[in-house]
Amino acid sequence: MASEQTVHMNGGQGDTSYARNSSLQNADQNRMRPLIEEAIADLLSASASMPRSMVVADLGCSSGPNALALVSIAVDAIRGQCFRSRQPPLEVCVFLNDLPDNDFNMVMKSLVAFQQGHRSVVTGVIPGSFYGRLFTTGSLHLACSANSLHWLSEAPEELRRNKIPAYDIDEHVRRGRRRVVIGAYARQFRKDFKLFLELRAKELVAGGRLVVSLAGRRSEEPAAEFTHAWESVVINKSKV
Amino acid sequence: MASEQTVHMNGGQGDTSYARNSSLQNADQNRMRPLIEEAIADLLSASASMPRSMVVADLGCSSGPNALALVSIAVDAIRGQCFRSRQPPLEVCVFLNDLPDNDFNMVMKSLVAFQQGHRSVVTGVIPGSFYGRLFTTGSLHLACSANSLHWLSEAPEELRRNKIPAYDIDEHVRRGRRRVVIGAYARQFRKDFKLFLELRAKELVAGGRLVVSLAGRRSEEPAAEFTHAWESVVINKSKV
Repeated sequence: MASEQTVHMNGGQGDTSYARNSSLQNADQNRMRPLIEEAIADLLSASASMPRSMVVADLGCSSGPNALALVSIAVDAIRGQCFRSRQPPLEVCVFLNDLPDNDFNMVMKSLVAFQQGHRSVVTGVIPGSFYGRLFTTGSLHLACSANSLHWLSEAPEELRRNKIPAYDIDEHVRRGRRRVVIGAYARQFRKDFKLFLELRAKELVAGGRLVVSLAGRRSEEPAAEFTHAWESVVINKSKV
Repeated sequence: MASEQTVHMNGGQGDTSYARNSSLQNADQNRMRPLIEEAIADLLSASASMPRSMVVADLGCSSGPNALALVSIAVDAIRGQCFRSRQPPLEVCVFLNDLPDNDFNMVMKSLVAFQQGHRSVVTGVIPGSFYGRLFTTGSLHLACSANSLHWLSEAPEELRRNKIPAYDIDEHVRRGRRRVVIGAYARQFRKDFKLFLELRAKELVAGGRLVVSLAGRRSEEPAAEFTHAWESVVINKSKV
């Protein structure tokens, strides 16, 4: 597998760009809206006193129109919550994260436009792998991640050592190794996801929320067609 | 004057790039080292208790090898101060700021490499004009800016209205308007610098420090050759 420095979606706005080929991912982000709204409502109602500002982040934001979708939902939810509780708008710091080879040029311009359209919002980019520390301890209120956690930190070591690819073009060989390959990737995912949770647990404030969605399938048997079974999860730091 | 969206140093690594034509700016950054070290020492010794983490930023970082120079000095100073006072290393959050058209692609890779070389450091980029809000209230410990504050928010309105350029190629016309042009730019600078200080005063923590250097000349008379009289200033938020 390529190193984390070279993995990124196709940049720009062309026919093969992620910006023009990511409607599936956008649909998934929209499914996360009620979870993000609920997380914000819980977070703000659970605080003994309203925080002065909030930090929200999208981990694995990619580029194109989807990059700001999750943080927009979060900012709207915070605004709505402040309005309903007759509080002045909170200051919100919005961070987008992805690997350093992501097409951040477009993201930067979108962020500045977003900030100009939202009073009391400041914005930034955090480059780096979400399998490493991205934020200082206890500094993050809400972290979201849509359709990104299937990007593992590396191919499973046991497969790399034996030069076994994830998808062998020889169907007979592929079928014979299916259980081995699926098992190795499942173990790698568990290891990476555990690390991801440990890192975010350090970075989130007490009571902070993590909302993630994952693509997967419900059985070990590959379907005739590739199917998506999206699962969204909200994790409350105070309960883990 | 071009809008703030289109002003940036030449990107990349070519012969005309800022990366290869910025040794003068680097010399100025080195002159700021003792001021940054002193600001960090004052900041940490003045705190009743050591903060858990610090946020430092370079405003107008540009690209190339200079982009990380000031924040590197700050991170080293924080490390040294912790070592001398026998404290464990503080977590440091390093932010680089410039306008969104800056060549951030190189900056991103430098930031990730910098983070990998420094334990307990996380990094990010804040795109936008430093004549607008960049950070939430009371969230910044140290802001540095080298050789950037001569970039004004706009050309003086009185000159634009009368279509008077900063530098008229007709020497006779230029000499005749010199006082008018210098006066208008001086007023614009005062207005912009006041705004810059007001914004940073909101963003800095109590006792936070601002270290800036400016290029200028000591008299109104243009010298035969353009000369640089670098002035560095440290501003302590608790004293302004």
